[in-house]
Amino acid sequence: VRKFPAVLLASALLAGGHASWAESLAIFGATIIDGTGAAPLKDGVLVIEDGRIIAVGKRGIRVPANHRRLEAAGKYVIPGLMDANVHLFLDFFPLTLARFEDRVDEIVIEASQIALKNGLTTVFDSWGPRADLVKARDAIRAGTSVGSRIYLAGNIIGFGGPYTASFFPSASEALFEGFVDRINARWQENVGPELLWMPPDEVRRQLGKYLETGVDFLKYGATGHGGLEHYIAFSPRVQRIFVEEAHAAGITAQSHTSSVEGLDLAVEAGVDILQHCDETGNDHPIPAETIGKIVERRIPCSLLANTDKALAWFAEQAENSPAYKRFITRDINDRALIAAGAEILLSTDAGLFGADTVGSAFWASIVPPEDNLLLLGEGHFTWLRAVEEKGMQPMDILMAATRNIARAYGVDRDLGTLEVGKFADLLILDANPLVSADNYRTISLVMKEGQIVERDALPTQRLLSQDPSR
Amino acid sequence: VRKFPAVLLASALLAGGHASWAESLAIFGATIIDGTGAAPLKDGVLVIEDGRIIAVGKRGIRVPANHRRLEAAGKYVIPGLMDANVHLFLDFFPLTLARFEDRVDEIVIEASQIALKNGLTTVFDSWGPRADLVKARDAIRAGTSVGSRIYLAGNIIGFGGPYTASFFPSASEALFEGFVDRINARWQENVGPELLWMPPDEVRRQLGKYLETGVDFLKYGATGHGGLEHYIAFSPRVQRIFVEEAHAAGITAQSHTSSVEGLDLAVEAGVDILQHCDETGNDHPIPAETIGKIVERRIPCSLLANTDKALAWFAEQAENSPAYKRFITRDINDRALIAAGAEILLSTDAGLFGADTVGSAFWASIVPPEDNLLLLGEGHFTWLRAVEEKGMQPMDILMAATRNIARAYGVDRDLGTLEVGKFADLLILDANPLVSADNYRTISLVMKEGQIVERDALPTQRLLSQDPSR
Amino acid sequence: VRKFPAVLLASALLAGGHASWAESLAIFGATIIDGTGAAPLKDGVLVIEDGRIIAVGKRGIRVPANHRRLEAAGKYVIPGLMDANVHLFLDFFPLTLARFEDRVDEIVIEASQIALKNGLTTVFDSWGPRADLVKARDAIRAGTSVGSRIYLAGNIIGFGGPYTASFFPSASEALFEGFVDRINARWQENVGPELLWMPPDEVRRQLGKYLETGVDFLKYGATGHGGLEHYIAFSPRVQRIFVEEAHAAGITAQSHTSSVEGLDLAVEAGVDILQHCDETGNDHPIPAETIGKIVERRIPCSLLANTDKALAWFAEQAENSPAYKRFITRDINDRALIAAGAEILLSTDAGLFGADTVGSAFWASIVPPEDNLLLLGEGHFTWLRAVEEKGMQPMDILMAATRNIARAYGVDRDLGTLEVGKFADLLILDANPLVSADNYRTISLVMKEGQIVERDALPTQRLLSQDPSR
Amino acid sequence: VRKFPAVLLASALLAGGHASWAESLAIFGATIIDGTGAAPLKDGVLVIEDGRIIAVGKRGIRVPANHRRLEAAGKYVIPGLMDANVHLFLDFFPLTLARFEDRVDEIVIEASQIALKNGLTTVFDSWGPRADLVKARDAIRAGTSVGSRIYLAGNIIGFGGPYTASFFPSASEALFEGFVDRINARWQENVGPELLWMPPDEVRRQLGKYLETGVDFLKYGATGHGGLEHYIAFSPRVQRIFVEEAHAAGITAQSHTSSVEGLDLAVEAGVDILQHCDETGNDHPIPAETIGKIVERRIPCSLLANTDKALAWFAEQAENSPAYKRFITRDINDRALIAAGAEILLSTDAGLFGADTVGSAFWASIVPPEDNLLLLGEGHFTWLRAVEEKGMQPMDILMAATRNIARAYGVDRDLGTLEVGKFADLLILDANPLVSADNYRTISLVMKEGQIVERDALPTQRLLSQDPSR
Repeated sequence: VRKFPAVLLASALLAGGHASWAESLAIFGATIIDGTGAAPLKDGVLVIEDGRIIAVGKRGIRVPANHRRLEAAGKYVIPGLMDANVHLFLDFFPLTLARFEDRVDEIVIEASQIALKNGLTTVFDSWGPRADLVKARDAIRAGTSVGSRIYLAGNIIGFGGPYTASFFPSASEALFEGFVDRINARWQENVGPELLWMPPDEVRRQLGKYLETGVDFLKYGATGHGGLEHYIAFSPRVQRIFVEEAHAAGITAQSHTSSVEGLDLAVEAGVDILQHCDETGNDHPIPAETIGKIVERRIPCSLLANTDKALAWFAEQAENSPAYKRFITRDINDRALIAAGAEILLSTDAGLFGADTVGSAFWASIVPPEDNLLLLGEGHFTWLRAVEEKGMQPMDILMAATRNIARAYGVDRDLGTLEVGKFADLLILDANPLVSADNYRTISLVMKEGQIVERDALPTQRLLSQDPSR
Repeated sequence: VRKFPAVLLASALLAGGHASWAESLAIFGATIIDGTGAAPLKDGVLVIEDGRIIAVGKRGIRVPANHRRLEAAGKYVIPGLMDANVHLFLDFFPLTLARFEDRVDEIVIEASQIALKNGLTTVFDSWGPRADLVKARDAIRAGTSVGSRIYLAGNIIGFGGPYTASFFPSASEALFEGFVDRINARWQENVGPELLWMPPDEVRRQLGKYLETGVDFLKYGATGHGGLEHYIAFSPRVQRIFVEEAHAAGITAQSHTSSVEGLDLAVEAGVDILQHCDETGNDHPIPAETIGKIVERRIPCSLLANTDKALAWFAEQAENSPAYKRFITRDINDRALIAAGAEILLSTDAGLFGADTVGSAFWASIVPPEDNLLLLGEGHFTWLRAVEEKGMQPMDILMAATRNIARAYGVDRDLGTLEVGKFADLLILDANPLVSADNYRTISLVMKEGQIVERDALPTQRLLSQDPSR
Repeated sequence: VRKFPAVLLASALLAGGHASWAESLAIFGATIIDGTGAAPLKDGVLVIEDGRIIAVGKRGIRVPANHRRLEAAGKYVIPGLMDANVHLFLDFFPLTLARFEDRVDEIVIEASQIALKNGLTTVFDSWGPRADLVKARDAIRAGTSVGSRIYLAGNIIGFGGPYTASFFPSASEALFEGFVDRINARWQENVGPELLWMPPDEVRRQLGKYLETGVDFLKYGATGHGGLEHYIAFSPRVQRIFVEEAHAAGITAQSHTSSVEGLDLAVEAGVDILQHCDETGNDHPIPAETIGKIVERRIPCSLLANTDKALAWFAEQAENSPAYKRFITRDINDRALIAAGAEILLSTDAGLFGADTVGSAFWASIVPPEDNLLLLGEGHFTWLRAVEEKGMQPMDILMAATRNIARAYGVDRDLGTLEVGKFADLLILDANPLVSADNYRTISLVMKEGQIVERDALPTQRLLSQDPSR
Repeated sequence: VRKFPAVLLASALLAGGHASWAESLAIFGATIIDGTGAAPLKDGVLVIEDGRIIAVGKRGIRVPANHRRLEAAGKYVIPGLMDANVHLFLDFFPLTLARFEDRVDEIVIEASQIALKNGLTTVFDSWGPRADLVKARDAIRAGTSVGSRIYLAGNIIGFGGPYTASFFPSASEALFEGFVDRINARWQENVGPELLWMPPDEVRRQLGKYLETGVDFLKYGATGHGGLEHYIAFSPRVQRIFVEEAHAAGITAQSHTSSVEGLDLAVEAGVDILQHCDETGNDHPIPAETIGKIVERRIPCSLLANTDKALAWFAEQAENSPAYKRFITRDINDRALIAAGAEILLSTDAGLFGADTVGSAFWASIVPPEDNLLLLGEGHFTWLRAVEEKGMQPMDILMAATRNIARAYGVDRDLGTLEVGKFADLLILDANPLVSADNYRTISLVMKEGQIVERDALPTQRLLSQDPSR
């Protein structure tokens, strides 16, 4: 019996980060943690054909003869990880967008490869430039590019583009208006802040058009952004339109909220996912009543969970600048939601950033040193440790990063667990993730739809990313 | 039979702008338009005692012998005018507040005198520094100062003070923070923007405290201000708290709204008055459905009605700056509400402004030349002409400026019409206001609670006002 | 023999801070340090008549019989102190000017009283609103107001007013332009920044007009201000015009400089005083060659000398903000000039500031805690200690604060020393100022032109000043 | 006899914009205007070998047999045009520099090709990023790139980089400091604004280092920039250092001035060229005395001459914004200098700009429509018409664009006239430039060092330039 990965690399991988075809193979001997919440299966066998799992069981189950055998004794097989909230293109600062205005889709691919390399076989991009994301998603789907599987929402409905009051308005003064308008339009399309002025019928009309542009799910800004986190953006009846229209289009709807009342309104609107429901400002944690509704109605809740280390840094900054207090409140919310048994989703807000951005004083002012939820490829590991620190159970943590997300987004027919019939999206880890969340970092192999990912070859092109370790 | 006003001035008036006591007198011969909507009573008699109307009828009704007779043949008697929305202290710009930081209550008195002089016997101050307003209101109520009767709300619940993002944030950079904080606190007290972050229970607690400070009615910001007019400030359930708590405290509740959805939410919250319900932004007039609810539920609606002349100027400005388009939309709303038979209230947003303010480029950029709703003492005349231009019926116009307001604010037991038992708040006009709204300007006499106002003596002190004609 | 000051207060002082007439009196028994550099005269007698010194000598000299005797054994008599560089109205921030726009002359009086109370019998105001300063100066000169004797320059030629780029431009955005223009014009008059554009003839013409407005000396900005300290404002030939025209008008000319080249140009232009010649920016001390010229040509040099305590604070701030490094360079310059034997003048830049200003974060960012050259009434004491720390000799220190200034400004016929024929401007100190510069604080009596100043009554009105100890 | 250019194109030109070798050829039959001021030579012959002119005379002079003949009867041969003041890389706005940070030298080449294509065989780049300019200059000099011959100065000594107060400070707020610092350093190197703080010795030291970096001439900012045009940057003695050190290094020195006093100081400093000596601000033209010195000392003066059309537009703008008045004053200066017989140089300040820049509101605010000195490839034609409008004589105009510039920059041994021994830099025009300055546009052929330029192939790459007509 040969050991991998040496042989694997020699036999099965092609240039470009991916095996060129989905092998028929079987993984032998590993402990299989299938993501359903069932007890780990020791010395298991997992059989893969045409990209899907065709059998899983104790050693001894029938494996077709033509299947290559992958010996993985002592290792752990888990479903491919997911991130319920990334922004593959997030470095929207003027330097980066001026440089790469015409190559944003390539940066999306680059980002998705860094995600994949680090075990995220599927990511949900909940804010970004729609057309570029669609182009990258489709290239990956078609197999012409390697990368994490992308589901995308495009704009957060009601938000302005990068160079508006919603995000980084000071850019507008230094850049020419032609560029500023182009960039903002690329995000906003027809679902920007002007929707806040509209009566329900007109919102429905604009939304209808947007839903035809290839988005995979809908996200709306129930509250404001860029200093307006305490304002509500849409009336309850308009929020219900978002949910209705998404469902009518066969996709899920989620909210962006940033205050206790904003959260409660989104709950009442019937969203499928409460994105970062732990974000309620500096001073007021989620009231018990709202937590009760979330738990009772089983509305999946993504958390932006910070580690204790990061929280200590935020607390230190908060002494001079109250803005950092919201992270403290976030922690209170995270612990309360976990304790109450809410359906938790892994969510990082992570993206890729260029060297000028990461080296700036601006960055240093918002990102805790040595701890970074925001960095794609790193953020999800940070998150897994953070929720462990907050008392979440190991098996719940695994499901928060796999099955829960697949269910919440309605893609659990194919994704989220290691059950027969599902895509063979999986990781082989050297150490048991149920013993310590840090063990998610011990990735030995990433497989997506039955193909083994050539991790060392990713990203295939570095336009933005600098860190060779990711 | 003596003619007035010459004799009146000689016999009945004292220094200080007011007759010192309420005479027993009778007005003979005028056409009485009593504000109830009843047909004008020609050659009428109106008998006043102890500040109230004790009889009204055709010449021939009994008049006690000791009543002084006021011959007013050829003239018109109408109820004292009201403005449902003024800001007696509105020149909150740094120059004025730095100069008069300790004399704001005196400016409130000055403003109320200019209002009174111009026929406004009662004004409703819907945003201002509460403590100063209370001081002025109480001095007038106690008779130690002359002035229009003041009802006040203090802060618009949820709004920041003058030097915050809600209004004039650039002031903060030029002024020292001690001053900025003092001024903002004077408006906000405990009901500023921090309420937007709070869960319902906490809002209720803060509101309870505020309602004990002597406010006469409650106004909340259902939508944002200072560029945030399209954002919603409070969730429906919090808006209902405002209404409930106001009613529990025995006062009325009104909304400030600035978008179609904001307006609809306020309607649903059950407010007693929709302040400037015609303000819905640049592009979207009020949908028919919302107008329908307003009319059906008979919710009083104040309009900020611009004249055709002002609208022409706004249209001209709008060619370069879309911000002016909201005035066009306002006109559309005004006409629609009038046509639908909504209960209309006169509302100007007017205040008093110093010479530096009125002479500034800033002023010139927001105020149409030769037409000014914003100038206290002038704005209500402008309004009366504006709604006439929009097709409102003469009798309806009169009631919009009198009875409707009294009813809407729940003070119609004493105010709003010339009916027996009510306060003798009235104007004698030289020309018939039902023939032309401009005739409201032909004021010959102002009476408040039976006292004849010495108009030439007002204001008794000019701290801010410069225009000798007002 | 009566002790003072108790009896003095009872007999000789009137309300308003000043004895109403100049007594004929003689001071007995004190050590007289006359400011000429001569050795102190122990047990001396100083005889005063009609406001001037008529005799000074050892006990035993003839004293007219009708002279009241002032016993001062154990005390020290020195000439009244002078400050070569104050700004009696310096709190030009919007709050203060908005409040006191019409009372600036009163604040000038208030400031001059605080100066006088603290031993400054003469001050040279080298930048301020000319007309207000003239009004105050003339009132004091005429005896209708009490205060330090004022000599004034008005604007620093070439500088913009308070709300221009030269000083505090951000004020302009928050204030209305009418006010901003009025205030700026009040300082600039016809000698503002537009002079930098002019050819020599035109400069001469404008200057000629300005010199007729009652200024006592001329100060021009050889270099820029407000971030332009390294720019030169006037060509050498224009600088020479300033000196020539000042001399032709019978007054002295001084330069404001802030860089090494600016200083050298002013030296070459032939100015009478180099105001704060120690100000040369962050990194480059005055070259030896320039110091050589200053010493050789005996050009009086005013220093803005900081104490070691203040310097330590500046050094600490400089770690984050290089702007503070100029204070370190100033110290190097101060020590070099003192060591080279330059003619030094006491100079503080001090003024009066209101509570909002002193309590602001802005203030805290520019003024070292517990050490303040900028505070009128305190700054000169700080200065005296600072130059002592820098190694200046006690007698030189005294002359820097008295005789040198009088000479430099050409007023030494009347002022600066305790010599026969001069004005009786003097202080009586409890402790010897030659032993420690801190002893200048032990003021027991202030006399100006033979009149004893009722220090406790000053200032007679507090518009700005808050500190009861000054 | 064959007609050109059809044959020429077929036989003599290679791809890449340039004939690959300098032909031996003779131009027959044209009117030769040699740039010396001599009368035009009709039906002349000009013989070229190894890139230089070996003979010029009437038809009939000896022409070596192997020389290809170029028939040009009816046409006009003039020296290649020069521009004494361009900025090949001038679009330093954030969008462009972010995009092309690593390709600035390529844009310099692109710009030099547009210059060459439009008849400028030599350009003097008087402000730009030195290292990039050196790279481009050397590539053209070595023949590896085609382009106008470049002489360069790098930074204007004393000026800050593009994103400093000298130019476009607001960029700094929107861009990360790493980028801002890199860009500024690229221009400033060691001769930025810190020189204004330095004593003469230190300036000399820094300058010495800079002069070793390959600059072809030196330009110093005698006055400030970016709103500081009325301030003087360097003392007379430091200005003399610039001239001395440049001369010691064997290169010329020129001044940038923007005020009457700044200009006079530069005259006195002994500069070789007064760059845009017509720029003296809004209100004060150059005094007669200074013009006298310029003429008497024969100091070459470059003008930024606007056409009447542009001036009319500036005058219109000036009604609202005084900033435009400087163009009016410039015209007064231009006319006075021309009338006085000053040595005039063509100067445009022109550069290349990308589509976002040219399409911006910023551009529209500074550039007159349909008339543009600032656009490389167009600006020099504009200039030639402008000085004609101002009354300059046709032959003087030609020399201002050729011989005068060569002399002023000390390169007249090789350049500037069509005399034997000089480089064969020449243009063949279809129409007589002495009849109308617009005839300079009728370029039929451009030759540089004996090589015929393939104009249609230029620029060989369009990174910034969009206009196909240039």
